[in-house]
Amino acid sequence: MIRQSSSLTTYIVTFSCPNRPGIVAAVSQRLFELGANITEAQQFDDMASTQFFMRIVFELPKDGLSEDALKTEFAGLANTFSMNWSISDRSKRLKVLLFVSRFDHCLVDLLYRWRIGELQIDPVGIVSNHPRETYADLDFHGIPFHHLPITKETKADQEERIWTVFQESGAELAVLARYMQILSNEMATRLSGRCINIHHSFLPGFKGARPYHQAFSRGVKLIGATAHYVTSDLDEGPIIEQDVERISHADDPDDLIRKGRDIERRVLARAVRYHVERRAILNGNKTIVFTP
Amino acid sequence: MIRQSSSLTTYIVTFSCPNRPGIVAAVSQRLFELGANITEAQQFDDMASTQFFMRIVFELPKDGLSEDALKTEFAGLANTFSMNWSISDRSKRLKVLLFVSRFDHCLVDLLYRWRIGELQIDPVGIVSNHPRETYADLDFHGIPFHHLPITKETKADQEERIWTVFQESGAELAVLARYMQILSNEMATRLSGRCINIHHSFLPGFKGARPYHQAFSRGVKLIGATAHYVTSDLDEGPIIEQDVERISHADDPDDLIRKGRDIERRVLARAVRYHVERRAILNGNKTIVFTP
Amino acid sequence: MIRQSSSLTTYIVTFSCPNRPGIVAAVSQRLFELGANITEAQQFDDMASTQFFMRIVFELPKDGLSEDALKTEFAGLANTFSMNWSISDRSKRLKVLLFVSRFDHCLVDLLYRWRIGELQIDPVGIVSNHPRETYADLDFHGIPFHHLPITKETKADQEERIWTVFQESGAELAVLARYMQILSNEMATRLSGRCINIHHSFLPGFKGARPYHQAFSRGVKLIGATAHYVTSDLDEGPIIEQDVERISHADDPDDLIRKGRDIERRVLARAVRYHVERRAILNGNKTIVFTP
Amino acid sequence: MIRQSSSLTTYIVTFSCPNRPGIVAAVSQRLFELGANITEAQQFDDMASTQFFMRIVFELPKDGLSEDALKTEFAGLANTFSMNWSISDRSKRLKVLLFVSRFDHCLVDLLYRWRIGELQIDPVGIVSNHPRETYADLDFHGIPFHHLPITKETKADQEERIWTVFQESGAELAVLARYMQILSNEMATRLSGRCINIHHSFLPGFKGARPYHQAFSRGVKLIGATAHYVTSDLDEGPIIEQDVERISHADDPDDLIRKGRDIERRVLARAVRYHVERRAILNGNKTIVFTP
Repeated sequence: MIRQSSSLTTYIVTFSCPNRPGIVAAVSQRLFELGANITEAQQFDDMASTQFFMRIVFELPKDGLSEDALKTEFAGLANTFSMNWSISDRSKRLKVLLFVSRFDHCLVDLLYRWRIGELQIDPVGIVSNHPRETYADLDFHGIPFHHLPITKETKADQEERIWTVFQESGAELAVLARYMQILSNEMATRLSGRCINIHHSFLPGFKGARPYHQAFSRGVKLIGATAHYVTSDLDEGPIIEQDVERISHADDPDDLIRKGRDIERRVLARAVRYHVERRAILNGNKTIVFTP
Repeated sequence: MIRQSSSLTTYIVTFSCPNRPGIVAAVSQRLFELGANITEAQQFDDMASTQFFMRIVFELPKDGLSEDALKTEFAGLANTFSMNWSISDRSKRLKVLLFVSRFDHCLVDLLYRWRIGELQIDPVGIVSNHPRETYADLDFHGIPFHHLPITKETKADQEERIWTVFQESGAELAVLARYMQILSNEMATRLSGRCINIHHSFLPGFKGARPYHQAFSRGVKLIGATAHYVTSDLDEGPIIEQDVERISHADDPDDLIRKGRDIERRVLARAVRYHVERRAILNGNKTIVFTP
Repeated sequence: MIRQSSSLTTYIVTFSCPNRPGIVAAVSQRLFELGANITEAQQFDDMASTQFFMRIVFELPKDGLSEDALKTEFAGLANTFSMNWSISDRSKRLKVLLFVSRFDHCLVDLLYRWRIGELQIDPVGIVSNHPRETYADLDFHGIPFHHLPITKETKADQEERIWTVFQESGAELAVLARYMQILSNEMATRLSGRCINIHHSFLPGFKGARPYHQAFSRGVKLIGATAHYVTSDLDEGPIIEQDVERISHADDPDDLIRKGRDIERRVLARAVRYHVERRAILNGNKTIVFTP
Repeated sequence: MIRQSSSLTTYIVTFSCPNRPGIVAAVSQRLFELGANITEAQQFDDMASTQFFMRIVFELPKDGLSEDALKTEFAGLANTFSMNWSISDRSKRLKVLLFVSRFDHCLVDLLYRWRIGELQIDPVGIVSNHPRETYADLDFHGIPFHHLPITKETKADQEERIWTVFQESGAELAVLARYMQILSNEMATRLSGRCINIHHSFLPGFKGARPYHQAFSRGVKLIGATAHYVTSDLDEGPIIEQDVERISHADDPDDLIRKGRDIERRVLARAVRYHVERRAILNGNKTIVFTP
């Protein structure tokens, strides 16, 4: 729950930097001096990479420091510790561009969570390689719909158009909600750290086409889904969230697909939530996820 | 629970055969004529292989048909339908040969379940490539221990000795309880359908050495274990049971190994139970598992 | 998956009767004689109540026995064994009347599963004690909406109107999809065995109002939901399905409510599926659920 | 995993205090000045009680501040913020007194985890109301065994003897590993915050005797276990950990008891681990559990 006082603004700062003694002391001391009240803090000290990661939620009086002034103040400290950092106002909704292909269960689920106020997102557009009629039953509540069909020949063009939509809409995050096109390396690089994909079936077990049919052939007893940041290696990006369900020999591929839909939509929704709340932080080919 | 009347013998029959109409009718009619009371029955009609699978638990009066006579009677019917079949007296404990290497958590767990009467097994031997001193803290309760060390050069010899132990002990099932040697194709073939392995980490995701370190490097959010029948392809045999636990970025390889131990022992114990109760039936490179 | 041959009709028969030897033999023999091919069968022998329960899925040629003739044939056998029984054509959608109050997540979820053909239901009406405007964002796709407000004084009247809607719509099942009114004993009795409720939070742990707040106060580490048949004792009817999710001290009541929504909708959807597929059978104050 | 440098000592400090701005800054600043390197930190700001909770893991050079000097230094700070606090050397094993009655699965499991070095405990005694012969098959590895039988008349005396054992053994934690005696209010108070119990079946659903039989009668689809701190209200103490497993109509009470054993032992082991690692902190009738 987001508790918001009318006289306070809540900020989230996340940062990573080379580990060394005194980081927590310096940051918390500085925030204290700026009049901040820390309400949440989580940290991780990666022994392997010797990087330090932190997420802090704090409140500032609305009549105190402005957001710009806050960032300027923090920048000095960040510089000292060579931080990658970002500060965001928790009450601002993240602008999200949603991508979909034929199957709409993840899209419908995200839109529902947005509509009831569960997800702090602002959907600025829906991109599909299928026409609007594919979703005839869906009410997009005024969200701009972009039909961007794609063929082998037009892929580069189509991605340019996507990139234009992304930039012009002011999108801060792309969510591939069962968008069945592989992004080019260039596109993946452009969206690095701000593009989430849901991979059906259980990564990294079953790559390639028709993973549920692969899972069926293999006779597995659990199927799952993986939400991850997109990199140029489509199904191998840093994992944000995973989940599974039990299946039996009596489940055929259609049953797996049905159960898969339930797993996919909840895994993707959780991953988007973690990103929106700045809980997911990239760490090389892995993620730090500061879950509550 | 195994409910046993003093005047009744409980049998389990399992069979598979090409599917065709009338199998259930014929089998249940025949069992009825033989005086059997069916207490459990499960079936599966594999659309892909067009094979039919069934498991029936039934009771016969102790002063009625003998086990041999029952088998003779059933053989006729089985012949008509070209069945692969087996009948066993549920009160007889299955003779099991246990294999272990350095890590003993699965072995200790299986022995505990045997000792308190949870698993209907009769451990006829423990085979290890490590000496008895490795398990100095363990009381084997008189179960014969076979130290069968192995090197690249002596592998063939060692497996011959294993095979001798298996045969002479009257073992009906081999359980590789974290036995870290790969069986030769010949050995795997000899033990086909009667050798269960536990594969740590989540198959088929991470093959090869140190799977938990692989899982850690990959940043997965779930780890698991798979119990399967052994085939010549060590980690690819028909899966009997799988389970997972959630991990986070804060879990290092040692934490994964610790959580893995818990998953491994419960997954292996369930798989052995399913085999002992004749719930697991091979179906090509998959299994039918008639869970309760 | 429902595999349907164009020349075959698939039926589901379920029955319960006092246990005695020969039931399976008689039923499977009779179905065989009628030309049926059994594709699924599950049974349960309740030692406590000495009742026998069975569910059989079978195919009949479309140009063979009619549904009426089939039922007549089966009735004779059913009489012999004093069965409670029912036969249904699996391709016919079950007529369902949906009930909702302020929170629409379960309703939206069921409608989605219906729309994509996942649930074999035919929603014949939506009943709410709130007006149509409460669901201004929802497209009911032409399903009749019945605003039936209720006060302490009008409860009896309102329930009569519900009963009229239920009967006139031809509904075969009532689904209380977070309908926050307690049915009277009389109404519960009328709908006995054909009314499913979802109880948020984990029954029977937290009864009464605001169960998530109770769970929060108690500091539980898991919350859940229970779907059950409605009896006059609202939250104590025979349980069909349950599930849980992990929570922590950092989750406040609003987080519990959010996580609860996800659990509730999947638990209710599974329960409706089990009922629709005739997998759930009442057994006193419990259920038999023949899961795949 | 516990990473230990030979030249560093790792300490865990936990504290709770009334919330106010500046706590994190002051504590991290002070630790920094003392030469500490913080490797883990977790905090929780309880909006309801307005209490603040924190757990910090930090390293100090072995040739720097002594443990006593460290505590003296911290005491000053603690005083300023009215903290309840404790500091412990992570390499020191916690002295644990284990309690057991007839069923030994939790005891065997804890001893195994201790023996392989998984749990940082030092078992200083085993107390049972049953004689040593009950555990004839168990090797206690030299841990003193105390047979303290109990009757209604001798309860007060028996608890005095327990208290003597607890004190004389230097025990820091009592673990009721399926010890089936209810502690008196006085005893519960004496052991407040340092006594963990495992409650079989799913609290708070089924209180009183034979909870698995209650769960069976109720026809639940999930059973579970709860580990909690003992208070004078035996099954109602602050919950540390819970888990569940799925059951079906085909599981009888003995199956529930069998599945329950697996849940109980893993839930209790996790709870003990959380306590040993100072992750579990009392917060009124709830707990904060800083899981990794």
